[in-house]
Amino acid sequence: MSNLKKLFNPGSIAVVGASQESGKVGNVITKNLLELGYTGKVFFVNPKHDKIYDQRSYKSLGEIAEKIDLAIIVLPAKIVVPVIRESAGRVKNFVVISAGFSETDEEGREREKELEALAVEKELNILGPNCLGFIIPKLNLNASFAGGMPKAGNVSFVSQSGALAVAIMDIARKENIKFSNIISVGNKMRIDEAEILEYLSQDEGTKVIGMYLEGIKNGPKFIRVAQKVSRIKPIIIIKAGKTEKAQQAISSHTGALAGSDDIMDAVFEKTGVLRAENLADLFALIELVSNTQAPKTNQVAVVTNAGGPGVLTTDAFGGKEIKLGDPNDGIKNKLREFLPAESSVANPIDLLGDAMEDRYAQALDVLDSMEGLGALVCVLTPQDQTPVSKIADRIIAFRDKTDKLVATIFIGGERVERSVAKLKENGIPNFSFPDLAVRAINEYYAWNRRRTADQSGAESAEPIVVDASRQENIAAIIGKAREEKRGALSFPEAQKIMAMYGIKTPSVTDIGAGDSLPEGIGFPAVMKVDSDKVLHKTDKQGVILNIKNREELEKAYAQMEDNFPGERFIIQPMLAIKTELIAGIKIDGIFGPIVVYGLGGIYTEVFKMVDFLVSPGSIQEVKASLAQGKLKFLFEKTRGQAPYDIEGVSKILFGLSLLAREAAEIKELDINPLLVYNDGKEAVAVDVKIII
Amino acid sequence: MSNLKKLFNPGSIAVVGASQESGKVGNVITKNLLELGYTGKVFFVNPKHDKIYDQRSYKSLGEIAEKIDLAIIVLPAKIVVPVIRESAGRVKNFVVISAGFSETDEEGREREKELEALAVEKELNILGPNCLGFIIPKLNLNASFAGGMPKAGNVSFVSQSGALAVAIMDIARKENIKFSNIISVGNKMRIDEAEILEYLSQDEGTKVIGMYLEGIKNGPKFIRVAQKVSRIKPIIIIKAGKTEKAQQAISSHTGALAGSDDIMDAVFEKTGVLRAENLADLFALIELVSNTQAPKTNQVAVVTNAGGPGVLTTDAFGGKEIKLGDPNDGIKNKLREFLPAESSVANPIDLLGDAMEDRYAQALDVLDSMEGLGALVCVLTPQDQTPVSKIADRIIAFRDKTDKLVATIFIGGERVERSVAKLKENGIPNFSFPDLAVRAINEYYAWNRRRTADQSGAESAEPIVVDASRQENIAAIIGKAREEKRGALSFPEAQKIMAMYGIKTPSVTDIGAGDSLPEGIGFPAVMKVDSDKVLHKTDKQGVILNIKNREELEKAYAQMEDNFPGERFIIQPMLAIKTELIAGIKIDGIFGPIVVYGLGGIYTEVFKMVDFLVSPGSIQEVKASLAQGKLKFLFEKTRGQAPYDIEGVSKILFGLSLLAREAAEIKELDINPLLVYNDGKEAVAVDVKIII
Repeated sequence: MSNLKKLFNPGSIAVVGASQESGKVGNVITKNLLELGYTGKVFFVNPKHDKIYDQRSYKSLGEIAEKIDLAIIVLPAKIVVPVIRESAGRVKNFVVISAGFSETDEEGREREKELEALAVEKELNILGPNCLGFIIPKLNLNASFAGGMPKAGNVSFVSQSGALAVAIMDIARKENIKFSNIISVGNKMRIDEAEILEYLSQDEGTKVIGMYLEGIKNGPKFIRVAQKVSRIKPIIIIKAGKTEKAQQAISSHTGALAGSDDIMDAVFEKTGVLRAENLADLFALIELVSNTQAPKTNQVAVVTNAGGPGVLTTDAFGGKEIKLGDPNDGIKNKLREFLPAESSVANPIDLLGDAMEDRYAQALDVLDSMEGLGALVCVLTPQDQTPVSKIADRIIAFRDKTDKLVATIFIGGERVERSVAKLKENGIPNFSFPDLAVRAINEYYAWNRRRTADQSGAESAEPIVVDASRQENIAAIIGKAREEKRGALSFPEAQKIMAMYGIKTPSVTDIGAGDSLPEGIGFPAVMKVDSDKVLHKTDKQGVILNIKNREELEKAYAQMEDNFPGERFIIQPMLAIKTELIAGIKIDGIFGPIVVYGLGGIYTEVFKMVDFLVSPGSIQEVKASLAQGKLKFLFEKTRGQAPYDIEGVSKILFGLSLLAREAAEIKELDINPLLVYNDGKEAVAVDVKIII
Repeated sequence: MSNLKKLFNPGSIAVVGASQESGKVGNVITKNLLELGYTGKVFFVNPKHDKIYDQRSYKSLGEIAEKIDLAIIVLPAKIVVPVIRESAGRVKNFVVISAGFSETDEEGREREKELEALAVEKELNILGPNCLGFIIPKLNLNASFAGGMPKAGNVSFVSQSGALAVAIMDIARKENIKFSNIISVGNKMRIDEAEILEYLSQDEGTKVIGMYLEGIKNGPKFIRVAQKVSRIKPIIIIKAGKTEKAQQAISSHTGALAGSDDIMDAVFEKTGVLRAENLADLFALIELVSNTQAPKTNQVAVVTNAGGPGVLTTDAFGGKEIKLGDPNDGIKNKLREFLPAESSVANPIDLLGDAMEDRYAQALDVLDSMEGLGALVCVLTPQDQTPVSKIADRIIAFRDKTDKLVATIFIGGERVERSVAKLKENGIPNFSFPDLAVRAINEYYAWNRRRTADQSGAESAEPIVVDASRQENIAAIIGKAREEKRGALSFPEAQKIMAMYGIKTPSVTDIGAGDSLPEGIGFPAVMKVDSDKVLHKTDKQGVILNIKNREELEKAYAQMEDNFPGERFIIQPMLAIKTELIAGIKIDGIFGPIVVYGLGGIYTEVFKMVDFLVSPGSIQEVKASLAQGKLKFLFEKTRGQAPYDIEGVSKILFGLSLLAREAAEIKELDINPLLVYNDGKEAVAVDVKIII
């Protein structure tokens, strides 16, 4: 990965396309560099002028004798490549503000390819093109065409939308959110979200990384980097573009079950990224993480001066990992010492509507000694007599002496406004409503818990080694099918591949076109057409089940030959059905091969009990996914029912993930049904469709 | 229902417990009535003083010669009843502010009963006790102990939490939400949410009713009234107390599946109440409904000056009834006439970051002519050059000439603050983030659609007549079981009751304790213990399935007699299983008997495909619930599978609802499984458990 340190910490900057003319993008950047306190050297390049704001205007980058750490390019798209090429020998870091690249038309896409080739050849770091630039408040450096300078702090925000970055800076000013970096990534030609994550993970001033993304440039790289960075700092992403776009035609059943947004969720889950559901959620999480340490336990105490908001806060804990802790009798007695008789000392602690600042402070002090507590939340509604500001002061003072996460939910308008501002200035996150607060604390806790768990187990997974002989064998099978111009493998071919990965299939009798039926077939049996032209066999009556004897078999064969003249058929034993799963491989446009698995049967789409495995690193990872996923009920003992074989299913799914890695020729794979048992029998892949 | 018009529009008010002493509740109310502009007559009652704020202080209500429309009682709990009794002959409307009633202890509960008896006897309207009072801004009447006077408008807010009402007024001031009534209902002794809804539905100044509720006083009354009022005005309720409290022990399977909050959802759905998910949602809905007419169609157009927020807005439409409409070519061409080439003219219309007010105005004008459009939403992020205020002006001007709903999503902080305030002052709802806006518009649209549909079909349902002879027969069966001290009916008894409601059960052979097995039993068969002591038969091995012949039957009987000495048994034919449902009756603490139904089988709890019927008014209502509910997939043709018999299942479920009405003795009822078919066979209630 490229070293972006110089790009984002330049000692000298040249603006190519600098301007004194108001209304021009180049002018905004020029003024931002001159007026906001940046202390590095700034050079202006514009051949049309001699001076810009009383500074020399150079004809070209080449004219500048001094060292240039960063060049900001604000030129018409057409001349961007030549200008960069000219100086690529001595300038290595660029921000290309100019639009007119791959976001436009064919010409623009060509232009971007050219720029990219240049960057690769000359080893250049290029942010953009088509971006807003970046801002580093600590350096008073606004290398963007957005006005103003946010407060310096520990939040890095990375945006694929320049406009949203501007709006977010405006909101942040009001909410007292302080930034270490604001980076607009534009077309992400060379520097994509993964590169930025890698850089920010090393940036000492950054405690939390927020991102607005519409797409992921390189799926596997993103997974690798996000997984690593998540263990160091929380990554909070708002991913836009959830609504499904029309997908390409998909011929496998499992493929159709895996929406791209579901896969995104699975990737975020796997990598430990916190997904913000919306902008409110994004701000809540950023504010919380920026200002507090993650709660060490999942136990939370809530104090409130109002019953209703207390109930709403309690509701917000429903389905969360964090819980309202139970104060023991010692704590309750201490609370009773100073609280009125009508107060509730069960969590949430109701201080009553007439609570003054002392009651809040005393309650917090008592609760601070509650064993195993991770966080304290103060709820307040501004009754006429409520000393809002004094209460805020006491909460601030308490925060200074506790090791627990402290957050507030002051619900109101003008009556709380100034105190909320004070809380925020003092680094106490305040949330307007209970559910935002509880959700954010829950996510923060879960991030920290996962990170701790990850760190203990992360090193143990063995690296996956590709089995070259298997690859060769598969290539031979697929090569033959391709020679015969088939789009899918026959069942016997698929069966061979399954066997290589230890996946059991039923024994099969192969009937070539026009063959007569062999003797010795066991009953009950199933007869199926086996052709790459009949992919949805069941729908097209290409499967006859429960054939009981020779006579029925002959009738079935006659019927099949009638329906599918010239095709091959297979006969399988009719297996006992206990539970049907479905499993397969889908090639995702961003993340590559994904293993999809879920509950099968005719209501697969109704129940949508489907989960995903994105390049699992080990069979243990698969097992953990199964044990926590939507199918976990199968692997638990329920109502006298024996659990299904989780080891066996894990082996099969991990096998599929290996196959996906080893056989890039496979476009889709569908095992439907995968019969699983809870009586010791091995799972069987009854039908296997492999599209090549 | 009582007439509350005088209570909430009093021409004269007496404050009993008035006070000049700062810090006292009576003082706040006294000052609120004197200082905020109320023009009715105000009398003060306080025997300890001669004058209060230069007005005469009466010794008692009796001393006041003039007519008193309303008395506000701010006295110690102990003397509330005697004071009201004394004046009950001439004062009919009371607000009891005083706490110390059923919210406290046994003594308080007794006191409240006494007060209620008095109210019934003397036909008094009493708001409270233990309430904040109420506020009618139009009359400048603050009959509460919250300070200040909200702006007058068309929003009524009813709160079970006084503190939350105060916080909401404070937020409303900032958000420019204007009120017709703010009513704190306290303990809801006589005037509960249903009474208030009834009153507010007739209150001309009220367009939308918002409520914070922790409980529902009288379930059936609430359903009746809410259903009626919802057809007139939107009711938006935030219902707190979602998290399940420990329930009483429940012996039926269906009973355990029906959480009280799920039932609340079903009631809100049935009655057309909009349930706010949280406070942000409540405010969004109130602001929208207060200021706009419901969209007439579900087609929405969005204009934006920023791509990212446009994508986020598009995302918010996922899963909603409202949709982004497709502009036709005519509209697109008109948009292209004035938009830059890089603009997108597909919905959302991207006006680009450099959009000035003209571009917004022109785009809105063009879109206004889009056929079938119901709403227009303007998204804005404040770029440096964006003329936020001028754009707001043009949107306001546009709103004045269109018949469509107009809303804005201005995303930002200081840069948009003043313009947002201007929009709100001019009655254009603004939402800070896209999803709040889209959800609120969707709910408003859905309310209006339902209301229109309801009004066309509402009168057609026939009233349900209780069948007295059935009631008698059931009472006899249950009476006999009770005499025998049984807690549940035997299967043959349950079978008789099922037959009365046209619900088919399998034929049964009854084996009394010690009986020998009769001849002529068909195979395969099932043998079960039939005892009120063995409610969970399957778990306790009280069911032997698939008995194939006489020999197996005799073995089974011997085993059963061993396991359950002295009990009765039944033999049923083993039926073919196609799909198992589960259905039953649960008595809800608030809403009475609820019919619960869902998908059966061993994974019932995993799939949680359960729905509820709250006193359905007709078989058509049941059918509609089935067709739209979680089981709808069964009644649709899917993947070559014939639909199940919706008429048959509706008949059974409606039969259960009739049974629930007619047999109050039934505590729980469980049909498990209810076998349903899609091949013309009639559904069968295989096992029926009736707890009495």
